[in-house]
Amino acid sequence: MNLENATKEELQTLEQKLAEKYQKYKDAALNLDLTRGKPGTEQLELADEMEGLLKDKLILEDGTDLRNYGGLDGIPSARKLGGEMLGLPETEVICGDHSSLSLMNLYMLHAFYHGSQGPNTAWAREGEVKYLAVVPGYDRHFSICEELGLRMISVDMLDDGPDMDAVEDLVRNDHMIKGMWCVPKYSNPTGNVYSEEVVERIAALGKISGSNFRVMWDNAYGVHDLFENPQQLANVMDFCRKYGTVDNLILTASTSKITYAGGGISFLGASEKNLEHFRKRLAVMSIGPNKLNQQRQVLFLKNLAGVLAHMRKHAEILRPKFAMVQKHLESELAGKGVGTWSNPKGGYFVSFDALPGLAQEIIRLAGEAGVKLTPAGATYPYSHDPNDKTIRLAPTFPSVEDLDQAMQIFVICVQLASIRQRL
Amino acid sequence: MNLENATKEELQTLEQKLAEKYQKYKDAALNLDLTRGKPGTEQLELADEMEGLLKDKLILEDGTDLRNYGGLDGIPSARKLGGEMLGLPETEVICGDHSSLSLMNLYMLHAFYHGSQGPNTAWAREGEVKYLAVVPGYDRHFSICEELGLRMISVDMLDDGPDMDAVEDLVRNDHMIKGMWCVPKYSNPTGNVYSEEVVERIAALGKISGSNFRVMWDNAYGVHDLFENPQQLANVMDFCRKYGTVDNLILTASTSKITYAGGGISFLGASEKNLEHFRKRLAVMSIGPNKLNQQRQVLFLKNLAGVLAHMRKHAEILRPKFAMVQKHLESELAGKGVGTWSNPKGGYFVSFDALPGLAQEIIRLAGEAGVKLTPAGATYPYSHDPNDKTIRLAPTFPSVEDLDQAMQIFVICVQLASIRQRL
Repeated sequence: MNLENATKEELQTLEQKLAEKYQKYKDAALNLDLTRGKPGTEQLELADEMEGLLKDKLILEDGTDLRNYGGLDGIPSARKLGGEMLGLPETEVICGDHSSLSLMNLYMLHAFYHGSQGPNTAWAREGEVKYLAVVPGYDRHFSICEELGLRMISVDMLDDGPDMDAVEDLVRNDHMIKGMWCVPKYSNPTGNVYSEEVVERIAALGKISGSNFRVMWDNAYGVHDLFENPQQLANVMDFCRKYGTVDNLILTASTSKITYAGGGISFLGASEKNLEHFRKRLAVMSIGPNKLNQQRQVLFLKNLAGVLAHMRKHAEILRPKFAMVQKHLESELAGKGVGTWSNPKGGYFVSFDALPGLAQEIIRLAGEAGVKLTPAGATYPYSHDPNDKTIRLAPTFPSVEDLDQAMQIFVICVQLASIRQRL
Repeated sequence: MNLENATKEELQTLEQKLAEKYQKYKDAALNLDLTRGKPGTEQLELADEMEGLLKDKLILEDGTDLRNYGGLDGIPSARKLGGEMLGLPETEVICGDHSSLSLMNLYMLHAFYHGSQGPNTAWAREGEVKYLAVVPGYDRHFSICEELGLRMISVDMLDDGPDMDAVEDLVRNDHMIKGMWCVPKYSNPTGNVYSEEVVERIAALGKISGSNFRVMWDNAYGVHDLFENPQQLANVMDFCRKYGTVDNLILTASTSKITYAGGGISFLGASEKNLEHFRKRLAVMSIGPNKLNQQRQVLFLKNLAGVLAHMRKHAEILRPKFAMVQKHLESELAGKGVGTWSNPKGGYFVSFDALPGLAQEIIRLAGEAGVKLTPAGATYPYSHDPNDKTIRLAPTFPSVEDLDQAMQIFVICVQLASIRQRL
């Protein structure tokens, strides 16, 4: 029954029934957590062969001693792997330590204070810099902007990627907009994949923006498919080469959600000219990355084919978890007019849009019944969801059983809040 | 014979003899390198047991999965080890990834742009910030200042540490001086150890500086003794507690030159109040350090006693190398009035002071005879040695045989340049 068509009495009866169920869960004092966008133990165990893999392999064939200082760009084999993952030649890739977030943060800091291509290009010199945030999006991208004082402008995520009409209009009319955050495949948290047309239009933005515009292309879930024959993401750098906008693009990826979340390696891809400038920052802050961990990952994953084979094992573990989320949403909420949700084919999240004004309330209700959800607003700049509607569900870490229970409670909370709003 | 007492003829004869020897070395087309302040292969091999040490030990007793995200401060056992090395309780220590330089860079960036204790304390707001550089010193400290635009003021290194009369005068009279770089034990490159009096006076600086003053105490060589019963470094934080200046001190150390130079772990020590603010920066740039590598180091080194036992093995390897450098300096240069040099009891360097105006020339001569030396000026802010006299020798990486040959050439170059200056 769609709540819109329900009489007041019907709503009251339903509310009472749901409230009783809710109370039972509350009394059970559960402790479930749907906030954590991190791999589950079983996924991590898939990479346990890495430990010990470097035994007697501490010196590369070219004589590089992995144990010693040096090598700002990362080791060649790791750069090559990153290149395969990002669709770039290895000369356009730097391999860093385990956190691609650190590389993004450092790049943004570099562009802001020091200039992507020298001091004259520093954003900080130009006045109040603005940056586009596709919403809902990844809170840690937004934190980097907040930290630097970049004013974020929200752009809606559509089914095939960011609303490019809006993006192009904004960029054309305001040259203080210096870039845009993108998670192009299985976007966090909606899980959709940018279409080829959207990728091409993003690559072409450099034609209408200033030369100092930087798309931050965070391909965090580029190989995180749940099913065979996944939707392919177009090669954005190839489009940039076509449009002569290679300097407007910075790509990142990591093996954090491939091998170990706290112990992978990260990649930053960019034109050789951009890398040349970026190395100056790297050189001040470090004598080089941990090459041992880079070689460890390369020996384990080997190449893109090895990565994809490994990710199929992840998919086997994750499919039942994502299916469990969809099962409850479908069976309890479909057709009731209480919200919409994504059904991603990969990545780490499901995004649920409640009726406007209800996200905080649903999260509160779930919390009191022992289900921790990501705080409302977390997927928006300045932690402010203007419609108070988006809830991010993270199904990867809990067990299928815990997900089953947590989602039973979640769908009750959604219905309760929606009914009460109408009463 | 002291050159000062030599006649012109004597000098000419000597010059000719040395020039012949020099030419022979030049003809031999050697390729020796005294620039690299990094451990030798034998030293690195001492830690090879680390690989594989985590097998079946990937989850801590408290349930922390080392493979997954999280834990901004580092794991407790690593913080404890860092605390023992820095003379602090573990609550005053954060354990990071392999590069303490990255932690220093991040702290300086934090203090400059964001403020050590909130936005109102940001150095950048106060105008042209100055920073004290003890000279000769570590080039990478100076690079961090240059990067941020901090104007460096040089203070001389004396036998027992920085010239504290000069430091206190400067700090008292100029509140735009916001701090000071220190390598308190086996200072880079002089190799001397700060006396207890100097340590106490540095700890007391906070009484005369503004509250926003930060001593960067880079204890990079705190356990790098070459001999038994080494000179002890006083506990600077204990003195800070006495003077009520705990917020004016930031300490760093790492296991880079203990286990693997490119694969150790780093520590930043500070008052809990300072750490509380610093965590905000860490939180923006990363989800946490590589905990696997932290546990790997802890399992291998165990505690301070384990570290010291391990460093005794390093000392056995390094003593003959440092001795070889001294042997040539003593036998060929002593009493000739061509320079002075340090004879450190630990650390990674020997500092040689040529006659004023000759460092560049000696380095050029050595280079042409196949011995690469650290560029003149490298140990001074802005790479400018006002007297063109300091040459940094790094004996750890070459073999004893290579050092023997390189030092034979070095002492010839020193004499040649000194004689030619007099002719």
